[in-house]
Amino acid sequence: MNNAVQLPYNVKFMIEGEEEVGSGSLGDFVRENKEKLKNDIILISDTEIISNDQPSISVGLRGLCYVEVEVKGADLDMHSGVYGGAVPNPLNILSRMIAKLHDEDGRITIPGFYDDVQELSPEDKADLDKIPFSLEAYKKSIGIADIQGEKGYSTIERASVRPTLDVNGMWGGYIGKGAKTVIPSHAFAKISMRLVPAQDPDKITQLFTDYFPTLAPSSVQVTVKPHHGGQAYVLPTSDKGFQAAKKAMTQTFGKEALAARGGGSIPIVALFEKELGSKSVLMGFGLNSDVIHSPNENFGLFNFYKGIETIPYFFKYYVEG
Amino acid sequence: MNNAVQLPYNVKFMIEGEEEVGSGSLGDFVRENKEKLKNDIILISDTEIISNDQPSISVGLRGLCYVEVEVKGADLDMHSGVYGGAVPNPLNILSRMIAKLHDEDGRITIPGFYDDVQELSPEDKADLDKIPFSLEAYKKSIGIADIQGEKGYSTIERASVRPTLDVNGMWGGYIGKGAKTVIPSHAFAKISMRLVPAQDPDKITQLFTDYFPTLAPSSVQVTVKPHHGGQAYVLPTSDKGFQAAKKAMTQTFGKEALAARGGGSIPIVALFEKELGSKSVLMGFGLNSDVIHSPNENFGLFNFYKGIETIPYFFKYYVEG
Repeated sequence: MNNAVQLPYNVKFMIEGEEEVGSGSLGDFVRENKEKLKNDIILISDTEIISNDQPSISVGLRGLCYVEVEVKGADLDMHSGVYGGAVPNPLNILSRMIAKLHDEDGRITIPGFYDDVQELSPEDKADLDKIPFSLEAYKKSIGIADIQGEKGYSTIERASVRPTLDVNGMWGGYIGKGAKTVIPSHAFAKISMRLVPAQDPDKITQLFTDYFPTLAPSSVQVTVKPHHGGQAYVLPTSDKGFQAAKKAMTQTFGKEALAARGGGSIPIVALFEKELGSKSVLMGFGLNSDVIHSPNENFGLFNFYKGIETIPYFFKYYVEG
Repeated sequence: MNNAVQLPYNVKFMIEGEEEVGSGSLGDFVRENKEKLKNDIILISDTEIISNDQPSISVGLRGLCYVEVEVKGADLDMHSGVYGGAVPNPLNILSRMIAKLHDEDGRITIPGFYDDVQELSPEDKADLDKIPFSLEAYKKSIGIADIQGEKGYSTIERASVRPTLDVNGMWGGYIGKGAKTVIPSHAFAKISMRLVPAQDPDKITQLFTDYFPTLAPSSVQVTVKPHHGGQAYVLPTSDKGFQAAKKAMTQTFGKEALAARGGGSIPIVALFEKELGSKSVLMGFGLNSDVIHSPNENFGLFNFYKGIETIPYFFKYYVEG
C-alpha cells in the first residue's frame, strides 16, 4: 500500500512453550534451524523492571540446577509404636541431610560449589548499588517477618548475583487429615540451585550427586535424579543491545533505566549464545508483585502498554546505534 | 438347655472403633458407664507375640504425644529465581528444626523430655533380655540396610522401653511430577513421640510446644497444634491377670510365655486404669510381620485359632488363681 511504513529491518518471532518445564525440545529446534534463526540481536521480554517509576534492564540471569532426591528406609511404611526408635526414619534423615546443605552463615556446603563463583567487578557492584531498595517495603510486599540469606551480602545481591539452594518441594509419610502413627518407608525432596556466571550446571549437578548421599547414615538408600539445568548469563552494559534498550526505556518512562540482575533463569538465553552466537537483551516489563508461579499471577495494563510503546524504540535505536 | 455349660463368671464385651484416630469419644463413654463397665480384669488382644514359636504377653505399652507443626514464610509461594537466597524457605527451615530435635547420639533434645523417664529395674531388664532377637532377621524382615537409634540401648529397648520422636508425615511446596522452581510459603510436619511410664503426654506436649518454635529463625512463624496423646502403661508380672495369661499361653503354645514390652500405644488401657481402677492384660496374638498400618496388613489363621484356643484358659486360670 502507498501509505504503508516499511520497517528498515527484519523481525523474526520465536514462541517457546516449554520454558517452565525445562525447554526439552528447544535445543534440537535451534540447532536444526540455525540459518532461519540467524540474527543481529535477540529481544526477550521475560524479566521485570524495578518498579513502574524505575525502569531497568536485566543484564544478568542466574543459571539453574534442579534435582529430585529420594531416601528409602524400610520396604513398607512401619508402625511407629512397634518400630519407632529402632529403625531409620527417612523423613527425619532427609531433614538432617537438607539441614547440612547450608552452614551457619547461609553458605552452601557442597564441596567445590563456589569454585567458579566470581565476585562482581567494582563497576557492576556500583550498578547494583544504584537500585533503590526498601527493606520494610520488601518484607511487607511478600508478608515475611524477616529476610535471611548468605552472610555478607545484601538482599539484592543474594537474590541476583549469589548462588542459592532451595527445597522446592518435600513429601513423605502420612499427609492427610488427622494423625497416623507411621514411619514412612520413603521421603522425597525437589531441590534446586540458582547458579551464577561460570558455574556449570552439569558440574554442579555432579557435585551435588556425589555429595548428597554422603550425608546419609548407612541405614538408608539415597537416590539423586537430575531434572533440568541452565547456564547463567551476562550482557555487558557496553553492548550495543543494552545501550539501545536503555535509550528506549529511558525515553518512554522518562527516567534513566538502570542495569539490574535477574535472579531467575531463562535457559534459552545461554542456548542462543552458544548455538547462534547472538546476545539477548532482556527488556521485560513485569513487576516483582506479579506473583509469578503463584495463584493470582498477574501482569499490569500499565506494563502491557508501556511494553508496546517501548519496544519499537529499541529497534529504532539499535539500528541507528 | 440341659446340656448348656454355664460360665462361672460374667464376660462383658466392649468394642472400640476410634482407636486409630485418638479415641475421641471413649473417655466420656467410660465415665458415663462406670457401673456397667465394672470388672475384675480387662483382657485386650491388640498386641503381638514374639513369634508363633515363642508366645509372649505385653506388660508395658508406650504412651503417645502427637503434634502437627506448621512453618510459614511468605504469604504466597514465591519464584525461587526472583526471591531465592534472600527470603526464608519454610521447607529448609523446618528440615533444620527437625534435625535439631535429636542430638548426635540419637537422644531427643527437648529440654525436660527425659526428666520422668525411669531406667528398667534389673528384673524387668532380665525379662527383656530373655526375648530372642536376631539382628539379621530383623533387618531382612523389614528391608532396612541397618538399624539406628539411641546410643547405649539395644534394638528391643529402643523399640519398647525408650521414648522416641518420629516424623510421621511432612509436606510443602511442589510435590507433583517434574520440576517447579517455587519457594513454598508453608511447610508442615506431623510429629509423634512415643512415651514411657511416668512421662505425662500433656506435659510432653507442652514441652514440645514451648521448645519447637525456639528452633526457628525470626523470619518465619511457627504453629504447633496438638493432636491426641496417651499415657504409657505397665502391668507388673506379679499381677494375677499376668499370671493367668502366662499359664494359658504356655499351655496352648507348649512353651513358656515371656513378658514383653509393646512399643505401641493403646490409650484405652491407661483410661481404664484411671476411670475404672482396673488393670488390663494385653494378650494379643499378632506378629510383627502383620505389617500393621501398611498395605497388605494381615492376621494369620494360626494366630486366629490359637487365640480362640487360649482365651478360655485365661478366664479359667484367672477365676481359679
